Amino acid sequence: MPAYVVGHKIPDSDSICSAIALSYLKNAIGEECVPARLGELSPETLFILDKFGFEQPELKLSYAGESLYIVDHSDRVQGPDDIDDATILGIIDHHKLGDITTSTPLECWIRPVGCTNTIIKMMYDFHGVEIPANIAGAMMCAILSDTVIFKSPTCTTADIKCVEALAEIAGIEDPQALGMEMFKVKSAVEGTPIRDLVLRDFKDFDMSGNKVGIGQLEVIDLAIFDEMKDDLHADLAALKEEGGRHSVMLLLTDIMKEGSEILVVSDDDDLTAKAYGKATTEGRVWIDGIMSRKKQVVPPLQDSFAG
Amino acid sequence: MPAYVVGHKIPDSDSICSAIALSYLKNAIGEECVPARLGELSPETLFILDKFGFEQPELKLSYAGESLYIVDHSDRVQGPDDIDDATILGIIDHHKLGDITTSTPLECWIRPVGCTNTIIKMMYDFHGVEIPANIAGAMMCAILSDTVIFKSPTCTTADIKCVEALAEIAGIEDPQALGMEMFKVKSAVEGTPIRDLVLRDFKDFDMSGNKVGIGQLEVIDLAIFDEMKDDLHADLAALKEEGGRHSVMLLLTDIMKEGSEILVVSDDDDLTAKAYGKATTEGRVWIDGIMSRKKQVVPPLQDSFAG
Ligand SMILES: [Mn+2]
Ligand SMILES: [Mn+2]
Repeated sequence: MPAYVVGHKIPDSDSICSAIALSYLKNAIGEECVPARLGELSPETLFILDKFGFEQPELKLSYAGESLYIVDHSDRVQGPDDIDDATILGIIDHHKLGDITTSTPLECWIRPVGCTNTIIKMMYDFHGVEIPANIAGAMMCAILSDTVIFKSPTCTTADIKCVEALAEIAGIEDPQALGMEMFKVKSAVEGTPIRDLVLRDFKDFDMSGNKVGIGQLEVIDLAIFDEMKDDLHADLAALKEEGGRHSVMLLLTDIMKEGSEILVVSDDDDLTAKAYGKATTEGRVWIDGIMSRKKQVVPPLQDSFAG
Repeated sequence: MPAYVVGHKIPDSDSICSAIALSYLKNAIGEECVPARLGELSPETLFILDKFGFEQPELKLSYAGESLYIVDHSDRVQGPDDIDDATILGIIDHHKLGDITTSTPLECWIRPVGCTNTIIKMMYDFHGVEIPANIAGAMMCAILSDTVIFKSPTCTTADIKCVEALAEIAGIEDPQALGMEMFKVKSAVEGTPIRDLVLRDFKDFDMSGNKVGIGQLEVIDLAIFDEMKDDLHADLAALKEEGGRHSVMLLLTDIMKEGSEILVVSDDDDLTAKAYGKATTEGRVWIDGIMSRKKQVVPPLQDSFAG
């Protein structure tokens, strides 16, 4: 029976490319593995799969009785709903350590780098397995996506070196140009239903017993949201009620201006004032330099809930 | 301000040698680190430190406001009491994944191998740092201890190869003979107070909300306990009450016969029958082949508590 490799709910490009890249590596060292996904793919991820000739991984929501590798998360709320009935063989991740626990020893490769695929490259090197060109291309795009073409504060020299090495394997001369092409695909929001936009890259967190949902849209120019903000705000309020959440936030990140406007609906009017030192006006606040949910948005919020 | 490297409470040889070996590696790559310990050392560990010329790491119980690397555990109950007020930079471990969480990304090297020092050897190789002979000797002894000289079911080929490599660096011709010498030191129980024996290698676990303490004594011949079992049993009962524990078990492991007699005091008379298919008689049961608390004792017990 093969093991599955699966990323987080509302999969991003890192989760999908990690599942594909890790499955190939595990098969190469004699461990049968199949990539899977917990949801529909974003236009950006579809662009990557199309570009390098991959099918979508199998959509699989239930893992009871299965063995699996978890990639790109270690929080229970972001994983399969029946994760407790599965055997976790390993976790490859680059986020804060979440609340997944196991009853048997496992393999964890967790590093404070910009992307899970940077760690998977280390695993290929450790095992001395050659990376096929198309897998290298997909891994490279995932790193460009997670690090916002190296602009995110989560980006490390390990990520940059990894992109260089993968570009060489994939035969791609200008990785950053491909990154911009990818972000143009990501920035195309017209015609997309509001709820789909809000959920495109949305994660729930448990903060001292409170459920907090945080979405993020990274675009080349924030002006495309000008006509949409009221609708987005109304949908955040609906999402908050539907999920029994304490707070819902949506980061509208301008990757050229290098900052984010945060739309907020919360039980606590002072949420952003407490966490980031800047209050909202009509449920919105622009914060210069905020690019990373993981490194800049979640930790101060978690601390302010804990304190 | 240096970071600390600290193993679990009631430190064993793996926790102490890991703290020393990882601190040296981190210093070598420019990260200032100091080894520390959460309690008194066993005769076995003192033998290793003496043999290779190390001082005892600093006894340090409080880590509020400090940064630290956690080695040889990932369960909160086994770590520093104020771990929530510290910044965890990384975890190096070979046990099941415990309930430690963080609010920031970190470095985790967790592998299903026999000893934390086998993983630390991988870290030296990854960073291309040479291991000094005395550190190699201490690391090697920790692996021989955790794997019961390769007899434990937790022992992997990675552990055996690692011992071979470390023995060469340390200039030790017969690692297994040194292992037996070490286990003879470990087997010397005469004259030791009963409570010291029970706590020599004792760990608390949270099992579905129940506190369960499990100690282990590994000796060359179980006969040395013949006159002591009633006293040990009485002390387990006391320990259970003092700590508000659901159950306390002591594994008396015969490393030559390769099995363990388990002494049990529990709120549930059928504890071992449910978990291991073998009932106790007068609070005792011998189980052939049981050598490893981590791999053979904890997981079935945890599963039986989980229902
Ligand atoms: Mn990621
Ligand atoms: Mn250990």
